Amino acid sequence: MAHNAALSALADVLGDALSRSKSDLDLHGRSESHFPLTLPDAVAYPASTDQVAAILRICAEHRCPVTAWGTGTSLEGQSQAVEGGVVVDFSAMNQVLEINQADMDVRVQPGLTREALNQELRATGLFFPVDPGANAALGGMASTRASGTTALRYGTMRDHVLGLEVVLADGRVIRTGTRARKSAAGYDLTALFVGAEGTLGLITELTLRLHGQPEAISAAVCAFARIDDAVQTVIETIQMGIPMARMEFIDAASVRAVNAYAQMALPELPHLLVEFHGSDSAVAEQAESFGALVADHGGMGFEWAARAEDRAALWHMRHNAYYAILAARPGCRSIVTDVCVPISRLAEAVEATIADLAAHGVNGPILGHVGDGNFHAILMFDPSDADERDQALAAAARMVDRALEMGGTATGEHGIGIGKRGYMQREHGEAWQVMGALKATLDPLGILNPGKLVPPAG
Amino acid sequence: MAHNAALSALADVLGDALSRSKSDLDLHGRSESHFPLTLPDAVAYPASTDQVAAILRICAEHRCPVTAWGTGTSLEGQSQAVEGGVVVDFSAMNQVLEINQADMDVRVQPGLTREALNQELRATGLFFPVDPGANAALGGMASTRASGTTALRYGTMRDHVLGLEVVLADGRVIRTGTRARKSAAGYDLTALFVGAEGTLGLITELTLRLHGQPEAISAAVCAFARIDDAVQTVIETIQMGIPMARMEFIDAASVRAVNAYAQMALPELPHLLVEFHGSDSAVAEQAESFGALVADHGGMGFEWAARAEDRAALWHMRHNAYYAILAARPGCRSIVTDVCVPISRLAEAVEATIADLAAHGVNGPILGHVGDGNFHAILMFDPSDADERDQALAAAARMVDRALEMGGTATGEHGIGIGKRGYMQREHGEAWQVMGALKATLDPLGILNPGKLVPPAG
Repeated sequence: MAHNAALSALADVLGDALSRSKSDLDLHGRSESHFPLTLPDAVAYPASTDQVAAILRICAEHRCPVTAWGTGTSLEGQSQAVEGGVVVDFSAMNQVLEINQADMDVRVQPGLTREALNQELRATGLFFPVDPGANAALGGMASTRASGTTALRYGTMRDHVLGLEVVLADGRVIRTGTRARKSAAGYDLTALFVGAEGTLGLITELTLRLHGQPEAISAAVCAFARIDDAVQTVIETIQMGIPMARMEFIDAASVRAVNAYAQMALPELPHLLVEFHGSDSAVAEQAESFGALVADHGGMGFEWAARAEDRAALWHMRHNAYYAILAARPGCRSIVTDVCVPISRLAEAVEATIADLAAHGVNGPILGHVGDGNFHAILMFDPSDADERDQALAAAARMVDRALEMGGTATGEHGIGIGKRGYMQREHGEAWQVMGALKATLDPLGILNPGKLVPPAG
Repeated sequence: MAHNAALSALADVLGDALSRSKSDLDLHGRSESHFPLTLPDAVAYPASTDQVAAILRICAEHRCPVTAWGTGTSLEGQSQAVEGGVVVDFSAMNQVLEINQADMDVRVQPGLTREALNQELRATGLFFPVDPGANAALGGMASTRASGTTALRYGTMRDHVLGLEVVLADGRVIRTGTRARKSAAGYDLTALFVGAEGTLGLITELTLRLHGQPEAISAAVCAFARIDDAVQTVIETIQMGIPMARMEFIDAASVRAVNAYAQMALPELPHLLVEFHGSDSAVAEQAESFGALVADHGGMGFEWAARAEDRAALWHMRHNAYYAILAARPGCRSIVTDVCVPISRLAEAVEATIADLAAHGVNGPILGHVGDGNFHAILMFDPSDADERDQALAAAARMVDRALEMGGTATGEHGIGIGKRGYMQREHGEAWQVMGALKATLDPLGILNPGKLVPPAG
């Protein structure tokens, strides 16, 4: 067994909070994606920042890899211990530490999930808007710079993390940011750790910005004859500056899967799912402006979901679309692409993807946060068919190439992990080497989530 | 003369674009603040990224300090060459390179000023909102993470820089960010260079986010009997979520100075200056909600400035308040503090400042962007009176101590430079050492704006 000395020292510190059971290792070797099982040597369940610092001091001494784990819902293998070592599961550090209602911020531990946070906030009139679909842990959401359906209105994790407590690779504990709404006090270390996928330090506490629950919420769904009509509606909505809270697209293939999975009966056409937040009058005004654009583009079957339970059903359907699509072909796995392009290029990017997938015979329903220029193709393949898998991977790479040519990015929200490391040089050029240099400075032994995000060492 | 070899090599590359004239050195040795003259050895006026890269290669070879200069309007001596060497003045790189109207972004050179950009955007229906008062260069605004009166609604430079071209200390040129609205592709290098004050690299190009010109704008000014009434109005406005575009406070002493400077006749009382942006109906709704809060707190003399020229006069007055205050005492200099605190602590922070200044006999009118929790005391002193200067410095330090105790920051918007370096350890603790380590990685020879922001080397 590798890393025996480290594991023995960790067991002394953690006792029962260090697990080496087969089921635990197995559980923490998997991800929601298509990557193969990667068993860690142990799973640690720290209960405090001090314990996390002790773990890192021991692992640094023994050069044992350390990979952070929230809920394991990342999509690019970010929480998989690809070089073994210890997975640090933050599920025992899941408390709300302090709610500052007047300042609309909250201090939480990294293992708290976004749904649990919103449950705690229910009585305050405040909420935390970032919603990647999965009920992810907030530490993991910060580490992957998560976004999701509400980023259009509220922004991503980048816009919601005011400050962090981070344990560095050598066990030092630092705090970044403040509770003030802005600061010009030196380098923005908070922004450096957000999106670093646990390669620069382990987040042990987060201060997050909250929002007032909107006075009025209204959601709607409408169908279009052609994808282009739906996408043009999106582009014009954004360009008119209508402050949409959510604006999601699902294509006909996704609708078919959702209908089958959730016993619904939407017409098998491209759809937009939208939501408006604001005062009663603002929501009414936004809905009217949007409705006019929908009509211009031949949208049909406009259905409102003003009741909370109808809205919940609508977004539950959207969040489960991924599982619905997978369920349509039992046993298949998928590559979930998430390119993001400037909004003016969105129609072109979606159309080129559809044409490309058709030309190469790849099965890939399309859906996504089109209001941000961010869309997903769920590229399905039979895991026992290497050729089909390679076709899917090649299609994903061509999507990235097109997105970069259009001034976009390989990943709007899922991050790099294992799956997108191969695109980093293309997207960043020499700046990727700069990322590697920063990594080497903060983690000179390379123990933090090795094999991810930055260029291979040496 | 120091750095002769470097200057001779630079003259070969730059020709007339390297100046060693006394007037040029003198002009670039000054700042808007109270810091003493610091003459550089030369001033370079590059015309291209290639020339900037050549300057850095030469300066790295000869270990010659390099300090970037936009318009010299920073307030903490950021653009002063405190260790001599070359000041790189970006005024010859001042072009708009590309306006993407549909995507609401623009690519510019760093020497372009914010007013010149807005002039160029006039016909597009778009505008760039960040407004620190001075007509600063956009490269400098990014480097100091500038904000100002509109940050409340639109955010700071942190929220507006989508991507950068940066020349590193060794002359390598990198690009950060994309034109997509969000990205999870690795470390947020854009955020690292924004606010780095030219200590990590020189910005040679910026991609900036723009906004649609609001359909309606309305501004107003109102007076309060007591500071506390004004500040409570601010706190309740923020907590109600009224989306104010600007919300500025000026105290009675500032009003007195402004009246004298600009021949105005505002009552000598604390005032709020506010602005609303949105659709006609949204602006009307916001104004009504705000008006009700003003009335609750005994606000009086509510005057609307709906015409563009009246609004321009109002904000011109606000932007000139600093000069008006200085003019009230000819020959004096000032320390302009800019602490920022959580909004719930704002009243306490302002009151404690007033009491402290009174107790120590320091003359310091107060004004600022109170909607962000950010306020300025203009601490005046006679530069020939060392004792008065020390009193002002001590008062500034106590303001910082109180802001940090309240969970705030030493600087909401002016940055560190020379003036606030002494507060960094207190605000950041061990994280300041991490900033130093990042600096040493990207600028191992310490040639970029030495003597600023990070801990002294070695």
